[in-house]
Amino acid sequence: MQFDRIIKNGTIVTASDIYRGDIGIVDGRIAAIAANLDGSDDIVDATGLYVMPGGIDSHVHISQPSGDGIVMADDFETGTRSAAMGGNTSILSFCMQEKGDSLRESLKVYHAKADGECHIDVAFHLIVTDPTPAVLGQELPALVEDGYTSIKVFMTYDGLRLRDDEILDTLESARRSGALVMVHCENEDAIRFLIGRHEANGDLAAKFHATTRPIAAEREATHRALSLAEIVDTPIVIVHVSNREAMEEIERARMRGSKVVGETCPQYLMLTADDLDQSEMEGAKFVCSPPPRDKASQDACWDGIERGVFDLFSSDHCPFRFDDPAGKLNEKGRKSFRWIPNGIPGVATRLPILFSEGVQKGRIDLCRFVAITATNHAKLYGMYPQKGTIAIGSDADIVLWDPEKKVTITNDLLAQGADYTPFEGLEISGWPIHTMVRGKTVVKDGRLIGEKGYGAYVARERSSLTASQKTVG
Amino acid sequence: MQFDRIIKNGTIVTASDIYRGDIGIVDGRIAAIAANLDGSDDIVDATGLYVMPGGIDSHVHISQPSGDGIVMADDFETGTRSAAMGGNTSILSFCMQEKGDSLRESLKVYHAKADGECHIDVAFHLIVTDPTPAVLGQELPALVEDGYTSIKVFMTYDGLRLRDDEILDTLESARRSGALVMVHCENEDAIRFLIGRHEANGDLAAKFHATTRPIAAEREATHRALSLAEIVDTPIVIVHVSNREAMEEIERARMRGSKVVGETCPQYLMLTADDLDQSEMEGAKFVCSPPPRDKASQDACWDGIERGVFDLFSSDHCPFRFDDPAGKLNEKGRKSFRWIPNGIPGVATRLPILFSEGVQKGRIDLCRFVAITATNHAKLYGMYPQKGTIAIGSDADIVLWDPEKKVTITNDLLAQGADYTPFEGLEISGWPIHTMVRGKTVVKDGRLIGEKGYGAYVARERSSLTASQKTVG
Amino acid sequence: MQFDRIIKNGTIVTASDIYRGDIGIVDGRIAAIAANLDGSDDIVDATGLYVMPGGIDSHVHISQPSGDGIVMADDFETGTRSAAMGGNTSILSFCMQEKGDSLRESLKVYHAKADGECHIDVAFHLIVTDPTPAVLGQELPALVEDGYTSIKVFMTYDGLRLRDDEILDTLESARRSGALVMVHCENEDAIRFLIGRHEANGDLAAKFHATTRPIAAEREATHRALSLAEIVDTPIVIVHVSNREAMEEIERARMRGSKVVGETCPQYLMLTADDLDQSEMEGAKFVCSPPPRDKASQDACWDGIERGVFDLFSSDHCPFRFDDPAGKLNEKGRKSFRWIPNGIPGVATRLPILFSEGVQKGRIDLCRFVAITATNHAKLYGMYPQKGTIAIGSDADIVLWDPEKKVTITNDLLAQGADYTPFEGLEISGWPIHTMVRGKTVVKDGRLIGEKGYGAYVARERSSLTASQKTVG
Amino acid sequence: MQFDRIIKNGTIVTASDIYRGDIGIVDGRIAAIAANLDGSDDIVDATGLYVMPGGIDSHVHISQPSGDGIVMADDFETGTRSAAMGGNTSILSFCMQEKGDSLRESLKVYHAKADGECHIDVAFHLIVTDPTPAVLGQELPALVEDGYTSIKVFMTYDGLRLRDDEILDTLESARRSGALVMVHCENEDAIRFLIGRHEANGDLAAKFHATTRPIAAEREATHRALSLAEIVDTPIVIVHVSNREAMEEIERARMRGSKVVGETCPQYLMLTADDLDQSEMEGAKFVCSPPPRDKASQDACWDGIERGVFDLFSSDHCPFRFDDPAGKLNEKGRKSFRWIPNGIPGVATRLPILFSEGVQKGRIDLCRFVAITATNHAKLYGMYPQKGTIAIGSDADIVLWDPEKKVTITNDLLAQGADYTPFEGLEISGWPIHTMVRGKTVVKDGRLIGEKGYGAYVARERSSLTASQKTVG
Repeated sequence: MQFDRIIKNGTIVTASDIYRGDIGIVDGRIAAIAANLDGSDDIVDATGLYVMPGGIDSHVHISQPSGDGIVMADDFETGTRSAAMGGNTSILSFCMQEKGDSLRESLKVYHAKADGECHIDVAFHLIVTDPTPAVLGQELPALVEDGYTSIKVFMTYDGLRLRDDEILDTLESARRSGALVMVHCENEDAIRFLIGRHEANGDLAAKFHATTRPIAAEREATHRALSLAEIVDTPIVIVHVSNREAMEEIERARMRGSKVVGETCPQYLMLTADDLDQSEMEGAKFVCSPPPRDKASQDACWDGIERGVFDLFSSDHCPFRFDDPAGKLNEKGRKSFRWIPNGIPGVATRLPILFSEGVQKGRIDLCRFVAITATNHAKLYGMYPQKGTIAIGSDADIVLWDPEKKVTITNDLLAQGADYTPFEGLEISGWPIHTMVRGKTVVKDGRLIGEKGYGAYVARERSSLTASQKTVG
Repeated sequence: MQFDRIIKNGTIVTASDIYRGDIGIVDGRIAAIAANLDGSDDIVDATGLYVMPGGIDSHVHISQPSGDGIVMADDFETGTRSAAMGGNTSILSFCMQEKGDSLRESLKVYHAKADGECHIDVAFHLIVTDPTPAVLGQELPALVEDGYTSIKVFMTYDGLRLRDDEILDTLESARRSGALVMVHCENEDAIRFLIGRHEANGDLAAKFHATTRPIAAEREATHRALSLAEIVDTPIVIVHVSNREAMEEIERARMRGSKVVGETCPQYLMLTADDLDQSEMEGAKFVCSPPPRDKASQDACWDGIERGVFDLFSSDHCPFRFDDPAGKLNEKGRKSFRWIPNGIPGVATRLPILFSEGVQKGRIDLCRFVAITATNHAKLYGMYPQKGTIAIGSDADIVLWDPEKKVTITNDLLAQGADYTPFEGLEISGWPIHTMVRGKTVVKDGRLIGEKGYGAYVARERSSLTASQKTVG
Repeated sequence: MQFDRIIKNGTIVTASDIYRGDIGIVDGRIAAIAANLDGSDDIVDATGLYVMPGGIDSHVHISQPSGDGIVMADDFETGTRSAAMGGNTSILSFCMQEKGDSLRESLKVYHAKADGECHIDVAFHLIVTDPTPAVLGQELPALVEDGYTSIKVFMTYDGLRLRDDEILDTLESARRSGALVMVHCENEDAIRFLIGRHEANGDLAAKFHATTRPIAAEREATHRALSLAEIVDTPIVIVHVSNREAMEEIERARMRGSKVVGETCPQYLMLTADDLDQSEMEGAKFVCSPPPRDKASQDACWDGIERGVFDLFSSDHCPFRFDDPAGKLNEKGRKSFRWIPNGIPGVATRLPILFSEGVQKGRIDLCRFVAITATNHAKLYGMYPQKGTIAIGSDADIVLWDPEKKVTITNDLLAQGADYTPFEGLEISGWPIHTMVRGKTVVKDGRLIGEKGYGAYVARERSSLTASQKTVG
Repeated sequence: MQFDRIIKNGTIVTASDIYRGDIGIVDGRIAAIAANLDGSDDIVDATGLYVMPGGIDSHVHISQPSGDGIVMADDFETGTRSAAMGGNTSILSFCMQEKGDSLRESLKVYHAKADGECHIDVAFHLIVTDPTPAVLGQELPALVEDGYTSIKVFMTYDGLRLRDDEILDTLESARRSGALVMVHCENEDAIRFLIGRHEANGDLAAKFHATTRPIAAEREATHRALSLAEIVDTPIVIVHVSNREAMEEIERARMRGSKVVGETCPQYLMLTADDLDQSEMEGAKFVCSPPPRDKASQDACWDGIERGVFDLFSSDHCPFRFDDPAGKLNEKGRKSFRWIPNGIPGVATRLPILFSEGVQKGRIDLCRFVAITATNHAKLYGMYPQKGTIAIGSDADIVLWDPEKKVTITNDLLAQGADYTPFEGLEISGWPIHTMVRGKTVVKDGRLIGEKGYGAYVARERSSLTASQKTVG
């Protein structure tokens, strides 16, 4: 056999297996795996390295408007570049419906933003903010057919949140079309109430972002979302879970027979509310929603990763510049925490953090690492088997990890649009040194090799969860 | 000592004690309890009888408008008469705020309805349907001072339901004034969604009332109400709990440290959704919300009574005539279950059912019977020690129970406004044969002795729960 | 009416009620309660005081042999004296069967120890250590008929522990005779295993008493005892629960439908394992089993008291002298923690601690205080209505509490046989200033008034739990 | 490349992946996987078939003595033959220590029984019945080094059961050597107690096998085993879980941080206690321990498979002949259920049942099927990556499944020693039509092709759980 490229002598890791073997690539796809392959001029030596499916980050915000003239720090060029630096070969970004717009129109806007800009492959979730009968009855089913097979709804944020009746209608539409629904679970009214109390008390610093979004507000909305999905009888994804109480809601729902997928993120493993309690607006760097909690919540989230409460580990990359009037330090944000834009960058740091803190510290094994960072995302969001694994016929989206490499995270390494990382200074053991998309190297040894525009849009199948009504691997 | 009346030779029962003794009454109050009392011409012989505190039914709807020209079957005369027949000496009825009205105005209406009509003593909870700043900031605190120390909010019913932000504001107002908040927990949007589904399928019979208000809708709202109360940090009462899942929410909230009181009702012990599944609109007789569930839910509710999940056992008396165009058989109700008025009569049957099914069948002892039918209501709603017990200084609100008497329930016995009872034909062991309010006999041997207008309005103190922040006995 | 004694102007408290009234006593019993009583030369002025049922401590070890020549610090004279000082009017002490002895013989020994020595009333539980067919088949049923209606079994302590088959046979015998079984739940084998590990490591200090008896060993045995009782289908009492995990076993058993009563003790509210970690054998003063845990466990035990997991609050008084070769400082105990006698004094401090920390700090109300320190003990162990309440016909076992009195606990105050109290220096708000047994004052203003021998043995009825198969109030 | 054999055109399934590909085999191992392979004369056409790792049944009893002259129905020849018929390529059988014997001696006996007899590969777990210091301190560590890396202990069965202290010592030895411990969890004393009650009542029929081994006895022992393992701090496997309560113990232990693996079996999905309630000893065919429960327990076990409570699905094959004085119908067994040998055949039916009832009915997907029937067994018991997957370098233990094939189970099909199958008449959808061990066909189209003696003994590595202290995939 002849191959366009052969990856030799590496240790191949999938969501279930670890073994030595060579990988032969033809036309951007994996054509053969064998103990020993020959037949190519392009040999990538993986001696001493793990050969893993490229990361899929299914929770990434890029170029989304944030209101008030605040600008997200990443466009598709910088966002996908940074993702590639961190070992990702695909991202799922959000297309947010503007109120009054159709979903189709919104998609045009995001496709236009992404076209010709991406370094790695990209697909879109649809954020539904205006669930009119036309949107739910006609547009959404057609878009699902066209490969936009997942949507997201918000229970928080003024202007984005849906009421329960709207959520029910959206879930019903999704049930009919086979779309998979992601839900951001926080009770907006409770948060508004607490913000009112805090502002009445003059409590305006960044740290009060955390106390106005307590666990009870997240737990409540999580249980409500799960109950609404139970009533409609359709699976959902609970995104960015931050604590044990919300985890328990997921577990209870499963025990009632519901199909529910849980996701957590690096911020809930590595940060706490104390990080928001810093002087001079430093705390603003850590403002995201739900907020980081405490040490016990971190332990809970690790426990959830280990016990299978969470099948997805994503970044919730939502970057804003810090030292910028159009970002974290906007004029109103300096006056009250409520105006600090919610979100932190993380697409580049997700995988190294989990590898270093999870695999190297013995909390999870390599297979579980691959499952929750790549394979499950692909299966759940209809990209499998094209994406998410190392198997015959799959895209050669492959990352080589050097488990011996030590890196101290600095923002400079990450090639992102944001001017800071909340994980600055974190010492990492193990690093993705080579990112290959469809057989072609995009990042090597920390340097961008690829060119923007190589990254392609990926139309998706229906989720494994809605298509077959079977559980995720 | 001289007494106006002596009750001799009975077995006195309180929420903690059972003992033989005579009770001496002066000026409508208990003046002495002793092994042997003399000194009155008016001797009530209680040989072989239990001498118990009169029942307090803290969940009774009387003369409330129901919209669409539907008329509640009891006014204060018939309602309090029927209550007395069933061994009650006080009821707490609801004063419902009409939208746009002030609470004070609403109270005037209900006082006018009750004045001069009542056979037993009466107090009012306030149903808040229009929580304006004026209502919450000024009226409510003043009314609490005046003795209206409890309010109720609805999470269901179009026109009554409050949004989460309104509930939060109401809880906050209650927290400040020391009012105790009762919550009807069902998710209105979920119910609307399911009604839509059913009607689209042509499922219009009475039995679909039950399937459109599933346990998930009650559990969801229960958890939400408890979460909102947790966020505001104020106690609440979850009324008319119908099933284990909602019970578990109460228990979980207590484990989190919340103060929460649970209530259940006879319909959740004795009826099931199957009762709604009858031909010719017979099922309409059992339409109430939440609906009766199944045998497992009945067992769960008994378990909750035994284990202390429920501290209150009330009737949720909400009577409509069956054979009446202005009641259950209204024109629209015949076309779809959604128009059948929600509610069943029960103020007269609450105590006999619990005595017969609970005490006589060995599920609870006499003290627990007294606690959950009288004493806890008095303490929780600020009527203790005036009401709810047999102790020196308390009102002589006393009922004599004959544990040997067998009665088959028929609507005729109950002297109520409704033309049916959902418990028709139920065989009862043990009956309240003598009802005495402030020392004066109102009902004896099934005959009304008292005259309307004897029953008085009772201004109340703050709840034991909000006043002392201590747990209910 | 004429009375031997009248208690005037106090606030009477029972397990359910609080009210003002005078109490008239005739022949040691309560003959009348009224707003105003006259007719006695012996007036006890209770103005400003709470008039409460005398404490019943149902978990007291007195004059029990401990092996190795170690002597318990209290005999019946000092033990009942100290109990009276602390507001108790009855105790239930243990009669321990010596292996090879009959229960009847063992009882003779304990009766002989107690006769003529007691200051307050006394009854005996039977500790079964040798459950032969003769003991279980003949002796126990006869003794239950004679008024010894409760037994205790141990799952720990070499020489005392029963194997599972022995526990099953004992529970079966109890089920047939109507005896109520108390169980000390710790897994002896697990403890032996851990002691072996510790000694192998040279970890011999007093503090290792705590680490060799971990929560897992208590939780395991608790679940096992509950499971065995479930299999035999008979109620049990889980004594001296120290932590949340064991509490949860009790709650789970109740949810499965089991009848189970939980007990906790002051040491689990006020001490932690850190108290054992002191130099110079000071830690030995706090060695008891189960050991005190940590702050979270203290909170859990308070929670259990508030939520009704615990219906009994007892002392587990098991006193050893500290500065004595025949007590805590015995020769072998100095060499390894395993030889330090297990047990601490507490019969005098139980009530003041709960009053001060529970009632005065708003965790429980006065009625709940009375219930878990007196009434429930009487009902559960067959002494009600003779003991445990203030009601017509009951023994006038009454204690006057001064809620304003501040006392700092010192061992001198307690009049006990032990030479220390683990609660030395604890500041108490509220104190039992007058202890009356059957109408006669035993302790007044901290001085012993009564004479030894006044305290009488109390034959008991069957437990409310086994007699009626109904739940405890 | 040249291959000894190529499997062409099949759909390859692993624990995480499904894809089309050809498999090339060299020297009994998988040498290459590719879209299209050539280079062999031996082509196995897998068109339309699933190509899956051969089943590993890690819970099989063969040629074990059962006392009283009762003979197990399978020796290694028939047992491995039947296993191959049912799609297995390896089994883990038990070597039972006879009391007084060393483990090494016991192994010699079992190796002698197996040598030259097996059709598929075999390894041995060690049943420890006599945990002397010599056995635990010297023999076991040496045997673990030699590749016997798992042991089993019993909490039930007279003569086999270990006391808690023995279990603790065995767990400690395992912890030190890295052995993995399997536990059969039922409380022997409780069972003995209930057998006594039943026999005293004359309840002797087969169906009473089920009522004398209630869920409470299994739940108790499960919690105890987990607690002992928690105290020793070593992972364990809870084998053959039959119901929700025992499942919950596993989940609670995981939440406490314990490493525990759960196993269930086909009998708990497909049989109930009603199957034991048949006339003429027919019920004896279903006597196994724990006994099958009820429909709710079946649902619970399915739920456990879906939610990951169970990582292992095994047969607990323990065959006895029915129509045979040396089997189920032995003389004593006809007189009382207690003498009916415990165990049912199942090594041949395990995989078809799970495929048909689980995969084909949509409860689990193919990857989960492979994981819980093969891959997890291999990883957990130290046979991975040699066994349990389809990956480069692994043994070519491969089974071809025809998902379209319909089979009605009859005992004749199974080629086993037992004269009945408890699943007689069950209709199966999908069947393993070709079993290949190390590249060589053993069974094809229901006919045995291989010869006895081809099956080899497999020395094992330490478990993934004890070796790396990481979780199972």
